[in-house]
Amino acid sequence: MNTVIPAKIGMSTRDVDTPALLIDLDNLERNISVLAAYCDEQKIDLRVHAKTHKSVDIAKLQIRHGAVGICCQKVSEAEVFVQNGINDILITNQVLGEHKINRLTCLAKKSKMGVCVDDPANVEELNRIAAEQDVHLTILIELDVGGGRCGIRSKQTLNLMAKKITKASHLVFGGLQAYHGGAQHIYDYRLRRQAIEHAVRKVSACKRWLLSHGSSCRSITGGGTGTYPFETGSGLYTELQCGSYVFMDADYGKIHMEDKQIINTFENSLFVLTAVMSKTNAKRAICDAGLKAHSIDSGPPLVREARSVEYVASSDEHGVLHDPENILRLGDKLLLIPGHCDPTVNMHNWYIGIRKNRVEQIWPVSARGMLT
Amino acid sequence: MNTVIPAKIGMSTRDVDTPALLIDLDNLERNISVLAAYCDEQKIDLRVHAKTHKSVDIAKLQIRHGAVGICCQKVSEAEVFVQNGINDILITNQVLGEHKINRLTCLAKKSKMGVCVDDPANVEELNRIAAEQDVHLTILIELDVGGGRCGIRSKQTLNLMAKKITKASHLVFGGLQAYHGGAQHIYDYRLRRQAIEHAVRKVSACKRWLLSHGSSCRSITGGGTGTYPFETGSGLYTELQCGSYVFMDADYGKIHMEDKQIINTFENSLFVLTAVMSKTNAKRAICDAGLKAHSIDSGPPLVREARSVEYVASSDEHGVLHDPENILRLGDKLLLIPGHCDPTVNMHNWYIGIRKNRVEQIWPVSARGMLT
Repeated sequence: MNTVIPAKIGMSTRDVDTPALLIDLDNLERNISVLAAYCDEQKIDLRVHAKTHKSVDIAKLQIRHGAVGICCQKVSEAEVFVQNGINDILITNQVLGEHKINRLTCLAKKSKMGVCVDDPANVEELNRIAAEQDVHLTILIELDVGGGRCGIRSKQTLNLMAKKITKASHLVFGGLQAYHGGAQHIYDYRLRRQAIEHAVRKVSACKRWLLSHGSSCRSITGGGTGTYPFETGSGLYTELQCGSYVFMDADYGKIHMEDKQIINTFENSLFVLTAVMSKTNAKRAICDAGLKAHSIDSGPPLVREARSVEYVASSDEHGVLHDPENILRLGDKLLLIPGHCDPTVNMHNWYIGIRKNRVEQIWPVSARGMLT
Repeated sequence: MNTVIPAKIGMSTRDVDTPALLIDLDNLERNISVLAAYCDEQKIDLRVHAKTHKSVDIAKLQIRHGAVGICCQKVSEAEVFVQNGINDILITNQVLGEHKINRLTCLAKKSKMGVCVDDPANVEELNRIAAEQDVHLTILIELDVGGGRCGIRSKQTLNLMAKKITKASHLVFGGLQAYHGGAQHIYDYRLRRQAIEHAVRKVSACKRWLLSHGSSCRSITGGGTGTYPFETGSGLYTELQCGSYVFMDADYGKIHMEDKQIINTFENSLFVLTAVMSKTNAKRAICDAGLKAHSIDSGPPLVREARSVEYVASSDEHGVLHDPENILRLGDKLLLIPGHCDPTVNMHNWYIGIRKNRVEQIWPVSARGMLT
């Protein structure tokens, strides 16, 4: 694919071509260290979610800081990480159909591979193909713990599937996937905590049900950047799956944790660098980062520092900035905190890693566009 | 960059891996022919906007059907097209700063290059670098014709800039860029027409002003898929810049043209193929195309054919389908009409071109991610 790298190592931040995806390396490393220390202290495993950054370099940094492995959402994402030496991956998603499962089992020859299921026929299909390839897959049963997305909803199905997995020749029953995606972005602390308390009651009942019906339940995995202290506090989860904590974004910025929960200590490390490219109105400036440079699905980006300036509208290649004090000039560069980090990252080919206002690292967004 | 092609030539549509970006080649070709015939009949030039498709293959098809050249929004986009033999490009945007202008002037050695301006200092900068490289650039003055984005707003500035461009040693004054982006998506026919009538009055006054002050005004360029009959009907515009007409999308689908205007004859040619990957609730299905497979900035995608099914919510890698009649089953494949074609295309690496339910073409999204 065609690509243009918008910076060179050693360059000053303000010389980076725009728009570009910047990482504040100090903040990134601090976020990684803070969560690693928390998990260490709480004696809970951290399996970082690589769907956020899609970066082999960042995944390796997280593993060096103690992460037990990574999560991916797609087989094609996992392929990139396995090709680059990551060897413990959980696909926190359903993988269906001969073509995708064949690729999954190929990966299992080089890496420990886990996958989630919520359908009995899918369990049979996974085992059949794993047997053909003579590999073993770790299988987690996904519970719908309130997100209303994937995941089983009845204890009867749970039991049936656990038995089916346990009996299958090439599957290893790993336990439960119990991630509540919707809860991550509930702004109100009390409501967010309640959502996870509800999830924890469901997970607890399912675990008891499994044990009382002769199944094991080795791991319970879930939790994200918005809720992980609640899952950890439950004493029930064995593994967290946080992803966004490495970067944070404008939407996570709205999530306030009370009780001095650790989320307050994560800092924005991801920015879109943009330049003012038109200024024909005193109170309006147009910048060069629009819908193809950041995602507005969770609201517009925030402008870092220049406090009176607000990003008010996006079109494909432009952003409209409200500039009430007329402080912006043509060529001025601004840092935008994206509304939503994951889909923003997925638009860019390169991370430009900055320290002390200089380009220190240029990392590919290794699994960008890996959709299948 | 890493990439996985989700199909093979000759494969049946239903075997294409998901999610994938599909083109109905018959509809694409028909859209291209219809607008080409219209422009021919109306004796107006068509300079197709390549920001929509970012595809060398589609641009060449449009040029074979009579397009005089292409528009791009970014220098890096134009670089891809020039490298692939397209040699008449207008950048319908401001290009500022030494680095970007240097790249623009490099392109002018191989291709006719035009660019828009709305600032006098930018004119000087363009001329200085064009002179250093000994190339000529065609310069269009961009007017703000109601979009509230880039473009000058006063006749005094217009005159000053036209003189400056005309006097500049390495610039050729090409005329006016008068595109009203906001008007393209006004759903109400009457209001949309009024917006362009307002634009036309402004353009007409500016042209008279230029001519009466001794400047020329060779071309007036603008118009998009939502409004081009109005610009054409004005008799003032010399060139249209339609882009989305090749694909259409759910948002353009909401734009109804009265008076049998030609837009009704464009058909959806762009789809995201997605598969049902979870069905644990009778009235809900989860598909594998979320925020990283299509853009929801202009609303959710529509489901083609399966009429009772509705795409109701997106998360990063999932779509929630409301399935009131419980007709969907695991593995079922659906065609989604994206809410907004341009930013959707920019997420994908490959177009899978389909005819008679078979894969006939696999085209790269050549300028995907070319942001700078």
